[in-house]
Amino acid sequence: MSAATIVEAPMPLVAGVDVGGTKTEAVLLDARGAELSRARVSTRTGPAGVVGSVADAVAAARRAAGPTGRGGLLRAVGVGVPGAVDAATGTVGRAVNLDVEDLDLARRLEAALGCAVVVDNDVNLAAVGLARSRRPSTPSLAFLNLGTGMGAGVVLDGTLLRGTRGAAGEIGHLCFDPRGPRCGCGMTGCLELYASGSGLLRASGGVPVAEVFARAERGEPRSSAIAARFSTALAEAVRVLAQAYDPAVIALGGGVFASERLFLPRVRRVIGEWEASSTFVRSLRIGERLTVVEATSAVAATGAALWAAEIAASTAAGSAPALRR
Amino acid sequence: MSAATIVEAPMPLVAGVDVGGTKTEAVLLDARGAELSRARVSTRTGPAGVVGSVADAVAAARRAAGPTGRGGLLRAVGVGVPGAVDAATGTVGRAVNLDVEDLDLARRLEAALGCAVVVDNDVNLAAVGLARSRRPSTPSLAFLNLGTGMGAGVVLDGTLLRGTRGAAGEIGHLCFDPRGPRCGCGMTGCLELYASGSGLLRASGGVPVAEVFARAERGEPRSSAIAARFSTALAEAVRVLAQAYDPAVIALGGGVFASERLFLPRVRRVIGEWEASSTFVRSLRIGERLTVVEATSAVAATGAALWAAEIAASTAAGSAPALRR
Repeated sequence: MSAATIVEAPMPLVAGVDVGGTKTEAVLLDARGAELSRARVSTRTGPAGVVGSVADAVAAARRAAGPTGRGGLLRAVGVGVPGAVDAATGTVGRAVNLDVEDLDLARRLEAALGCAVVVDNDVNLAAVGLARSRRPSTPSLAFLNLGTGMGAGVVLDGTLLRGTRGAAGEIGHLCFDPRGPRCGCGMTGCLELYASGSGLLRASGGVPVAEVFARAERGEPRSSAIAARFSTALAEAVRVLAQAYDPAVIALGGGVFASERLFLPRVRRVIGEWEASSTFVRSLRIGERLTVVEATSAVAATGAALWAAEIAASTAAGSAPALRR
Repeated sequence: MSAATIVEAPMPLVAGVDVGGTKTEAVLLDARGAELSRARVSTRTGPAGVVGSVADAVAAARRAAGPTGRGGLLRAVGVGVPGAVDAATGTVGRAVNLDVEDLDLARRLEAALGCAVVVDNDVNLAAVGLARSRRPSTPSLAFLNLGTGMGAGVVLDGTLLRGTRGAAGEIGHLCFDPRGPRCGCGMTGCLELYASGSGLLRASGGVPVAEVFARAERGEPRSSAIAARFSTALAEAVRVLAQAYDPAVIALGGGVFASERLFLPRVRRVIGEWEASSTFVRSLRIGERLTVVEATSAVAATGAALWAAEIAASTAAGSAPALRR
């Protein structure tokens, strides 16, 4: 009698990665979508640096999950990148913070990781992560990201809205003030010039967001004016989301939101003033839908993993890929 | 020997109706969606008037289709109404031009017509009609309607976008000029104040749209200024649609568009100026997506019929109704 060798099938896993300008965060999920582990590595820039950072973060998350993570079978990896992405091919057109342009990221990562890889814009994937991780999950959500710039990721009817040219949700470059300054995009008075990290720094002469709002709280006139304009432009962006998409949830997040305790009440006040004078705005009940996301990169990594799992499942089932226009 | 009686099964039909302020137009389609006939009746206002006008228009379309129309089995009727509609219940909240408020239109028409009835906003149904009737049909389309006011109907991924509170596409009340006049909605400087029938009449002191644009062509200064502002606001609304939804097609229509030959070149000129100074706007390729709808109510009636047919088919197949949030 010989002892039978017991061979267990390796556990199927999916990973999601958020590539930020300084940190790359990975999350590992099991087949049912439960989180097994998380890990962070420093982001290295340039094409080889980005590919290596993603691979390192996934490896770190696998190690952090112990034997299950190290021995599991990675079925798919989703990657969120701060830049213009052609989601159909997984090519990064331009990501200034990562110092890459026209990078065939999905194909290079598939070679490095040995599994299917999907790549999308980080804000889009944060929107997916937020919509899927709510209890109960919501069919429609708009995520307004305020970082250096302003952009929105939109989930409608459970699916990510990308648009015909990947431009859906580009509301940061809608006009806030037709008499405003020229924006880097070439247009005038864009929302992003007023309600974004870069916009606020330009207006404040380099004084950081939190400090501007702290000074405004103390009544300093110049900071008060900047804070008021920031809050009004942000409220206007929220109104654009409510009137364009009318989603169940409007989530605000991004780097700037570390100071949310200081400026969220101001945004709510602006909306409250509009509601006092407009039955139309009142009917939108914007305040009830507003929520703040504290850790955007963690949410984007989760969204990337869930999105990769859905793509993998639809591919396995032989159905059309879950991409939509 | 007796002659056998040949009983043919009646042909299944669907009808679509667009209820306008003055005319009610009905279209009759066969089971494959082919148009059999059209008819128009005068609209009678008030609850009983609207129900009667729809029933009369459907009856007229049946007569116009000959024996097939008179003898066919009406499976479903879709109705488009200029006003706020709860599409889930088919209730018209408020339709000023029809003099109705809180009208249970779908239920009353089901009793009158003896078949399933769906009711929706006319602009939404025009968007459905436009998206479905293009060859090839397009998965994403935004229809900007300029009548007394401004509103958009949006089809994404083949499905009508309604939003959580039926407010999706309400872009007429986004801000065009923060220093502008107060809008009837209670907000300031709304797009609709500049680019709509009522907005133009207010600015021109009652001079009709076509006349204002004709005078502007002759160089009359006041009309030129009004036409320029109208065209810029309309171009801005088109840009909102491109950046929010990024649809394959952006269609312009509604009562005001009878004068399209006069003002469409101006709108294209504004967009051309933006493109000259903005790589971002250039990348949107808005001009290629722009199209004009000449007979909005005919398109809305077709959209209503196609929508009713899809609802009827999904109900027959036991699947969830094709309503989305």
